[in-house]
Amino acid sequence: MDAKALYKFSSGLYVVSAATDDDWGACLINTGLQLTSSPLQVEVVVNKQNHTEGVIERAGHFALCPITEEADMPYVGRFGFRTSTEFDKFAGIERRTTVLGDPFTPVASAAVLACKVVCTLDVGTHVVFVGEVVDAEVLSSAAPMTYAYYHSTLKGKTPPKASSFVPGA
Amino acid sequence: MDAKALYKFSSGLYVVSAATDDDWGACLINTGLQLTSSPLQVEVVVNKQNHTEGVIERAGHFALCPITEEADMPYVGRFGFRTSTEFDKFAGIERRTTVLGDPFTPVASAAVLACKVVCTLDVGTHVVFVGEVVDAEVLSSAAPMTYAYYHSTLKGKTPPKASSFVPGA
Repeated sequence: MDAKALYKFSSGLYVVSAATDDDWGACLINTGLQLTSSPLQVEVVVNKQNHTEGVIERAGHFALCPITEEADMPYVGRFGFRTSTEFDKFAGIERRTTVLGDPFTPVASAAVLACKVVCTLDVGTHVVFVGEVVDAEVLSSAAPMTYAYYHSTLKGKTPPKASSFVPGA
Repeated sequence: MDAKALYKFSSGLYVVSAATDDDWGACLINTGLQLTSSPLQVEVVVNKQNHTEGVIERAGHFALCPITEEADMPYVGRFGFRTSTEFDKFAGIERRTTVLGDPFTPVASAAVLACKVVCTLDVGTHVVFVGEVVDAEVLSSAAPMTYAYYHSTLKGKTPPKASSFVPGA
């Protein structure tokens, strides 16, 4: 078995975020995916160790923003390599709210989708959240950032909690 | 709601295939995704109207090949725009079999993964198949084909059965 086969998969990079009355979280994922067009449904796959996973579960909704190539490493570090329990990831950056009440930033976001969780699937270390898209807006014409671009141009790393981590490869 | 927000999602292109004792099918999808690294699990999302969907369900396993930029439009047409009930998609092309018995072609394939279905999720028009990867092999160093490349360079279209079809957009 050559786990490097997984490096041949292509994906984008996304900030997924959610808020309840008294808590919120946001994190960087490469697991945003359109599932169906009628009704319009997307999914996100989030590690159970991420604070944001529990917030989405309790909130029952999430915001999903594909990020653009305008995102730099400090931006990626803000959303991808810190925890929402210790750090307000929207501090000092423009913060808006979707119709469902989830925070997002238009900075380096190609679009924002407001999604209502319609079902979940426990896949072990991660949870798949299926969301019906109730609102969507294009925010930028800048190129969406692919995971390949993140690795090759930003020289970004994959943290162990990511779906796409490949141990030992 | 601006469904064009969905155009900001990035993905690859994959051939997913499966065989039972007396049937087989293969089709082109853009919904291959790594879910977890331990154990190594991937998912595919397949339209219920695709013959391959039923074959995967009955077989309980599938092969998944991210395709490369060496795939041309006849190749895409073979796997993406015909049906396995009327046409043997592996006719006249090198055909191999995974350890689980599923057919695949190494032609224009960046890698092949042999996957055992561990759970499924019905999301309406499509079914999500979660597969544990039991074998994986890198087949080519050519660049994996992204969906963006397919649209911009090959000028490919998105058929209505695809997860990523956006009606009216």
